[in-house]
Order: sequence, then C-alpha cells, then structure tokens
Amino acid sequence: MKIKTADYLVKRLAELGIKDIFGLPGDYNFNMLDAIINNPDVNWINCTNELNAGYAADGYARINGYGAVVTTYGVGELSATNAIAGSYAENIPVIKITGAPKTSFINSKALIHHNFSKPDYYAFEKTYSNIVETTAYLNKDNAKEEIDRLIETMIKTKKPVYLVIPMDICHHMIDDKIPEVKIKSDNNALNDVTEKISCLINSAKNPLIITDYLIKRYRLQNEVRDFINKYNINITSMIMGKGIVNEDDKHYIGINHGPLAENDFIEFYKNVDLTIGFGTLFSDLNTLGFAALPDDRFRIDIQADYAIVDGERFENVLINDVIEKLLNSNMITPKDQNSADKPFKGYKNIEVSNTKIRMDEIFPLLQNFLKSNDTVVIETGIIGYASSKMKLGSDSNYISQPLWGSIGWATPALFGASMADKSKRPILFTGEGSHQLTIQEMANLFKYDIKPVILLLNNKGYTIERYLSNNFDDVFNDITSWDYKKALELFSLDKKEFAYHSAHTSNELKEALSLAQNEQKEKLVYIEIFTDKADIPTLMKKSLDFIKSHSN
Amino acid sequence: MKIKTADYLVKRLAELGIKDIFGLPGDYNFNMLDAIINNPDVNWINCTNELNAGYAADGYARINGYGAVVTTYGVGELSATNAIAGSYAENIPVIKITGAPKTSFINSKALIHHNFSKPDYYAFEKTYSNIVETTAYLNKDNAKEEIDRLIETMIKTKKPVYLVIPMDICHHMIDDKIPEVKIKSDNNALNDVTEKISCLINSAKNPLIITDYLIKRYRLQNEVRDFINKYNINITSMIMGKGIVNEDDKHYIGINHGPLAENDFIEFYKNVDLTIGFGTLFSDLNTLGFAALPDDRFRIDIQADYAIVDGERFENVLINDVIEKLLNSNMITPKDQNSADKPFKGYKNIEVSNTKIRMDEIFPLLQNFLKSNDTVVIETGIIGYASSKMKLGSDSNYISQPLWGSIGWATPALFGASMADKSKRPILFTGEGSHQLTIQEMANLFKYDIKPVILLLNNKGYTIERYLSNNFDDVFNDITSWDYKKALELFSLDKKEFAYHSAHTSNELKEALSLAQNEQKEKLVYIEIFTDKADIPTLMKKSLDFIKSHSN
Repeated sequence: MKIKTADYLVKRLAELGIKDIFGLPGDYNFNMLDAIINNPDVNWINCTNELNAGYAADGYARINGYGAVVTTYGVGELSATNAIAGSYAENIPVIKITGAPKTSFINSKALIHHNFSKPDYYAFEKTYSNIVETTAYLNKDNAKEEIDRLIETMIKTKKPVYLVIPMDICHHMIDDKIPEVKIKSDNNALNDVTEKISCLINSAKNPLIITDYLIKRYRLQNEVRDFINKYNINITSMIMGKGIVNEDDKHYIGINHGPLAENDFIEFYKNVDLTIGFGTLFSDLNTLGFAALPDDRFRIDIQADYAIVDGERFENVLINDVIEKLLNSNMITPKDQNSADKPFKGYKNIEVSNTKIRMDEIFPLLQNFLKSNDTVVIETGIIGYASSKMKLGSDSNYISQPLWGSIGWATPALFGASMADKSKRPILFTGEGSHQLTIQEMANLFKYDIKPVILLLNNKGYTIERYLSNNFDDVFNDITSWDYKKALELFSLDKKEFAYHSAHTSNELKEALSLAQNEQKEKLVYIEIFTDKADIPTLMKKSLDFIKSHSN
Repeated sequence: MKIKTADYLVKRLAELGIKDIFGLPGDYNFNMLDAIINNPDVNWINCTNELNAGYAADGYARINGYGAVVTTYGVGELSATNAIAGSYAENIPVIKITGAPKTSFINSKALIHHNFSKPDYYAFEKTYSNIVETTAYLNKDNAKEEIDRLIETMIKTKKPVYLVIPMDICHHMIDDKIPEVKIKSDNNALNDVTEKISCLINSAKNPLIITDYLIKRYRLQNEVRDFINKYNINITSMIMGKGIVNEDDKHYIGINHGPLAENDFIEFYKNVDLTIGFGTLFSDLNTLGFAALPDDRFRIDIQADYAIVDGERFENVLINDVIEKLLNSNMITPKDQNSADKPFKGYKNIEVSNTKIRMDEIFPLLQNFLKSNDTVVIETGIIGYASSKMKLGSDSNYISQPLWGSIGWATPALFGASMADKSKRPILFTGEGSHQLTIQEMANLFKYDIKPVILLLNNKGYTIERYLSNNFDDVFNDITSWDYKKALELFSLDKKEFAYHSAHTSNELKEALSLAQNEQKEKLVYIEIFTDKADIPTLMKKSLDFIKSHSN
C-alpha cells in the first residue's frame, strides 16, 4: 500500500507509543501538522515557544519512552536547539521534525523568509548535526528509507534524531510497510560477559548495584526491581537514576552521595566488596562534584552497548540483553543476607517554627508530602542534591537534568511529563531564576487541566551562581523581582481555578503543603517559598567544600 | 602594555560604541562578566533568557551600529542561536561571546555539566559556524589575533561573529594595542563605477533611488538624505529601508509596494526611466510576495562590497565609498525637477466609530500618534506591510525583521533598541501570538524605566497562518488566551506604574492613543486591540491575492 510521506512518519511515531506531539505551527510545516491532526492515534500540542516545546518533548520522552517536536524552518527549529542538545546529552530519544519550504524553492535557492540573504537551505541541518545522533533531509528518492533509518537509530541509541521534511514531500507517496527493527547483541560476547559477571557476583560477599540513567532510557526499571529481589542484592542509585527502584524496597540504601552521604550509608558502603554499574554516568553534578566516584571495587560496568568487566571490554552487548540474561539465567546464586536492618528512610522529620524558613527544612516537609505515584520534576540549581535525598513514594517518577543542566527546563518538562502519564500526581520544584526563562508554558498546564503542585523557591537571584562566581554580590546574579501570583492570573485561561500560598516559615510551608494535598485534586497549586539569598542546603554546601578542597 | 584578554575584548567592544552588553550569567562566564562590570565604559544587562538577550542585542545593534551578547557554554549559547541567525540573515553586526570551561577541562575532555555524555568541547562552535560570519575559540596562543580578526570581520561585513573564551583565558595577558582596521575599496574600480553611475544618472530624465537595509547597516542615512537633496533625485524605499529618509522630505514618494501600492505611487513610478538600488534586498516579505520586484530600469545596483551597473559587475567597491564619492564629487548634475506635487502623505484620516475595529482602521490612527524621534518596532505577521505605509515623524527609527521573520523578536528587540537610544520614544506593535513567545522581557522595560507604548493585536491566534495553511480553522493556529493586563502586574517590579487600555472599536483606540500621548511620558502604556481573527489589512490581502495569482 502507498501512503503519504507525512502520514507514514506520523504512523511511525504512533507505533513508538508517541501520543502527544509538541511544537509550533509555521507556514512551512502545515502539511506536516495536517498529517498529525488527521491521525487519530496522536494529538497535536501547541506550545508557547519552540524551546519550551523541546523541553516538553524531553519531559514527555523521559516518561513515555519517546518524544517528538515539530517546528517550522530556520526560526522555529533554531529556538529548540538547546532543548534537543539536552536530550542528546542525557540520552532522551526525541525526534526533531522541521517543516521546510517546497523542494523547488530549495533547488532554486529562493530568497524567501526564514533564510539568509544568500540562502542556504542546508545550514540548519548542519547546525543540528552537531547536537543529535543523525540527521536526514527528505526528498522523493530517500523519504521512506531515511525515515526508517532515523527511527531505527532513535530506537537503538535512545538519542535524538533530526529530520527535515519539505512541504511537497509531505504529500509524496511511499510504501507503508514498517520494517522490523532488529537489535541484537553479539551472542558469544553476551554469553561471555554474563558468565564473567555472574562469576564475580557469586564470589562477592556483599555486592552492591549502582543503578543510573540508562536503566530509565532502556526502560529496564522492572527488570532491575526483579533482579535485586531475585538475587537479594542491595542497590544504590546515582542521582540521575533516582526512581528506578522503589525506595521502600529493603535492598535500597539511598542515593550514592559518596563521602557526602549520611553516616549509615558510608558505613554500609565500607563493607561492600563489589560494585556493579547499571548504566552509570559519573559526571560532575551526578557525583556531587566528583565526590561520589567509584573506586577499585567497581569491577562491572554495564553501558548501553558495551560492558567492562575486570578491565575487559565486551563490545556489542546491549544493556537490555545483559540485564535480562542475568535475570533469567540461573547463573547467579541468590545472596543469603539480611537486609532488614538498613531500610532507607530519607529525611528525618523536623519541628516546624515561625522563624524564617531554611533550605534544609524544605526537603523533609516536601518528603512528607510525597506519596505513591508522583511525578517529581526537579530544576537545576541548589535544590538538586538535597532533593535526591528525599524518600519517594512507591511507583513514582523522578526527573531532573544533572548533566545538561539547562535552567528553565523544568517548567515545560513538567508539562510534557504530565501529559505522558496523567495517572501520576505532578510536582515541580524550581527556583525563580529558572522559572522566569520559560514561565509561559504554565498556560498549557491550565489548558490541559494539569494540576501540579509547584514549589517556587524565591531567593532573589541565582544563588548557586553567587557561590560559584568571584564575588557573592555580583550584580549579574540578581534578577528582576516578579509578583508570581499574577502569573497564575495571567495564564489561568477562562479563569480556571488555582491556589496560591506563600511560605516564609517552615510552619507556613507545612500548612501550605497540608492544604495542597486536597486542593491539588481540584486545581493547580503554587507555593512560593521565600528563603535567604545565601541559604543553600547542607548537601550543596558539602559539595562546594569538597570541590574547593580538591581543586588546586 | 599588557592587559587581560577579557579586558581587551571588552575594550574593543567599547571602542565600537557598544555601551550595553546583553546576556545571562553562568558558571563558565563569570570571569568574562567581571571584565564587563569592571569596565566603566560598558553596562551589563541581565536578560530574562538567552533568546531574548540575543534579540535585545539585535535590536540594540540596529540602532547603535554594533551589539554584543554573552552567555554561558552549551545551554546558554544554544538558546540564542535563533536570534544570532536572524542577525546574520539581516546583516546585524552582533558579537556572540560564550564563556567556556577552563582550558584544562577542555583538553582533558572533562565530563562536566553543559556538555554531552561523551564530551565534545567544539560541538557548539561547529553549531554556530553555520549561522555567523566567522568563529574563534580562544587559547593562549591565538587570543589577541583572533579577537582582532573577529572585530575586523564584524566591522567589514556587518555580520555576526562568534567567540568562545575559556575561563582561564579571560585572565591571560595580551598586548593591549588596538590595530587599525583598514577597509578600502579598489581605487580604480571605484573610479570606474562612480563614473559609470554618474553617467547613467545624468542621462536619465526621471531617476529614482530605491533605498534599503544596507544603508542602515553601513549607517549612511545622512549621506542618502544629503544625496537626494544635493542632486534633487527622488527616492522610494523597500520595507527594510523604511526610516532612512525623512518621510516629509519632498523627494520621498513612499515605500515601494510595487503594483500593490496606491495609485499615485504607481503613476509616478511609470514615468521613472532609471532605478538605482542603494543596498537593496528583493526577498519575499520585503517585496510583498515578489510583487515589488525591480524591472529593466534597475540598471544600478549598489551592494555592500560590489556594484552592478548595466550588467557590469564591479568588485571591491564598498557601499560607503561608492555613495560618498558620488555625493562629494561633482560628477552628477543636479536634476531640475519640481518635486512639490508628490509629497508622501501616508494614510488618510479616518472617521472613528463604535463598531468593532477593523485592521485597516488601526494604521491611520497609529500614524496620527507618531511624531518626531520615535523608534517604531514592528513584529512579523499581518501588520508588517500595512505598517510600512504609515508616515513616520522626522528622525524616527523603524525596525522590523522581514527576512528572518522570527515571531517573538519584537518585544526584546524593542528593549534593546530603547536602550540604544533613550532620546527616542519607543513604540511596539505586535500580535499576541508573537508576544507570548518572549513576553518575560517586559520585566526589563520596567527595570530600566523604558516607557514604550505597546500595541498588542489580539485576534485569537496566528491569523497570517490561518490564511497560509490548508484550513482556516486548523486548531494549531489557535493559541491560549491570556489576561495580558496581568502581565503588566506580574512584571511591574516594585509596583511601577503603567497604563492599560483595551480597544474594541476605532473610537476606543483613538481615545487610548490620545491618553497615551501624555501617559507615556510617565509610564509604560499598553493598548490591547481586539480584532476579528479573519481580519487582515488590505495590503496583506492584496499580497496574498498576488501570490495566489502568480503561483502555479
């Protein structure tokens, strides 16, 4: 059967489980958008600008598995580069689709808008080629095979891909047959690596899994949960892996904050004789400034398509094949250890007061607010480390962006993540310095009846930057002071309901969160927390001290 | 004398006349920002996000001549790509400066934030290389010569350049001597071309200059004004050239809308026997959809660094040299024509009423509001063509973005343009579909006490896109409906004063503009105009009809 190219593309997206496609219209992408709105399996979601659309698709893909964003040519697509590069950095499979002028304009180098005075119709593909896994520029001869190649690349690498579809090519007829995507490990290497891993685990007395972001990307959360229970092996997580295991699982010992962790974690970790990496990334912000780096007990390192065991590198062994084979074979003997003495508890309860709230008081209160089935979105800044220490409710999502670290990401990412799984309760914790960059996407929270609890930390500027810059009071770390309650009135279309609370003390925050538990069922809840501009969480302070003591 | 590299760079910017540098802080650009805040000749302007900073620098450069924007590495710089590409498209000389991690991190490929999981420290320079004239990545060996090369390129080409300055290189000591930038035409070619041009003009009975954007970029407005008066030659302007001549100059016959112009323009144009291009660009939106293209009377085409006269191309003749030589030599005999019968009048006055306001009623009313020394900023969309027909007051700036056409540009560009010349009255005319993308930069209008009159056209979505897409009512052209008065309350820091008016009828708009004349002296004035979603200006309608009748 023949099918229009744009319809085929949308069909492939739907087949990947993409139900919501984010973006903005423009005069070069109308044929593409028509294909989207005419396909009953997908919804078109108009975002407020293209950067936000990219962030929303990123947040969506973190929960749903894959995401898509469509913009117009030149102007629209360039505004999304930061978001797509972030997806590339953190292995979030998002397809960036650009609607381009018709082929005859491209071939004649027509001097039309959204291009240069000396038109270059390939400049933006070249731009994107540096920040995605692969790119394609469709024409009549390559449309089918290039779409198939891009989708296969996205499935295999879990990284963004970029595609240009000229207006006329949208209507070009191609074969509708969806090819099978075959992704298989090298069988010999797989046998070898799993045997060697099993052997090492079997000879260890007290092994510990360090799980991380690639488990989320390859959607192996259930396998990891089964793994630790079948083999009775304990587990910690890097920050980017938070949420992979249920945090009340008796094998979970908390996030790996390394030497900056609580004493009971450090004591437990001392007795470990083997650490096993499940898709780890030891970047600066995922290790509290290179504090939580692995040591020579880290003898098993399972990555996306290779693994290193005792220094030996095995190629073409896919992380899902390795973990599934380890899980389903009987090569590993379950450990006979009592785990009941170290359940992870997170923050201890605090006594609230009517004095100015301190950062360290926020996280225990927020932890008490968490329950099962939350989606918790954490912005980059001073709150990341300390938030990772909170105990999540079961079956919750936790998403943050510690590698790319683009401020402003969290507000639209919350929107996308909420669209991806409406059965979860959305919670956003952001700072006002970040919120300002992308605040307009709140309009879509109202439009789509998403009812998050948004905690806005207002500390009069970029507090983390104050600590990192040469002078604490440098003017460039001050920001303009907004009346955020008015943002709710600005964006609450047709006067939809919302609740706004301000919290200057821990007592007020506790009260606000208590009200929010019920209010959130009916409406968006926004809690503005006012802290001192010099106040940072203890864990952040520890990390800064660690970095200072380790730099020359 | 030796000087720190960052201090030298800032000194070069100050020497170009750049007084305000736009951007956002980030942990990799603090050394650069310190150099800026420590130099008394420049001010640091914190923008609300990097795209807005890029747009603000673009708007600033359009008035001031040059602009600069500084962001952090990766995340920050990518968010600004669309703005910088727009500056590249429209020949706006902006230097984009990125603060990067220190050289030792770059050389060791350190796995730190704002980079990929396989770090690539050159990916973003490669990204930018497609959308600027040239790029540089500073190190100890090339810092001085690369800064000098970039500044020279920007001066010569009036196009954006991109520079990466690693943290440690900011403090690297270099020579402080500023080299002379020599830009000279080929003397023989210059003599030949000016002689040939003079000859053609002398033999024409009724020559007409078509002036355009490059005259603004090379800051030749005064020369053009002197030229038409010295030689008594009439002039029209392309849309991008609006504002070059004073519109009450007796030689000015209005904007060149080609066959879509008013009858008196068309009649006058018929009798022209020679058209002379002063830095023209015949792109789609600058010609109302290729309606206002030149014909075989267009025998003189003066471009940035070449000219074509009667089919003969002269290389290495710079536009400023050509125009200055023509102006100052005595090769051209002044024309002896009476110009008094064709002064440009712009829109005719209208009778206001209490029925729903129509688009065509807005422009005559706005024209009456204009006076000397305005800076008028026009957003892309349905208002561009019709706005270009308004008669400006004398010594006014008129800026729009018809080639790049990125919606959202106008609000931050107004901010930048207002900073560049505080003696002018800022006026912004935008649509709500565009305003939403970048609305947060309004906070800086309040912060810097800029008191524009902002006209917001609220027509429930992207009206131009409704006409260009396949179905008028496609949902992707609807946008969320905001309560814009609340935006003023959100961004009016410390409760600064503003005035808000809504206009549903021409009577209400006339009244609002009448109030605004005085209010604007004291505060920001915001006028929301509600039109029908199908209502477009007649000139836009004519252009759409023209395009339809000329497409196959």
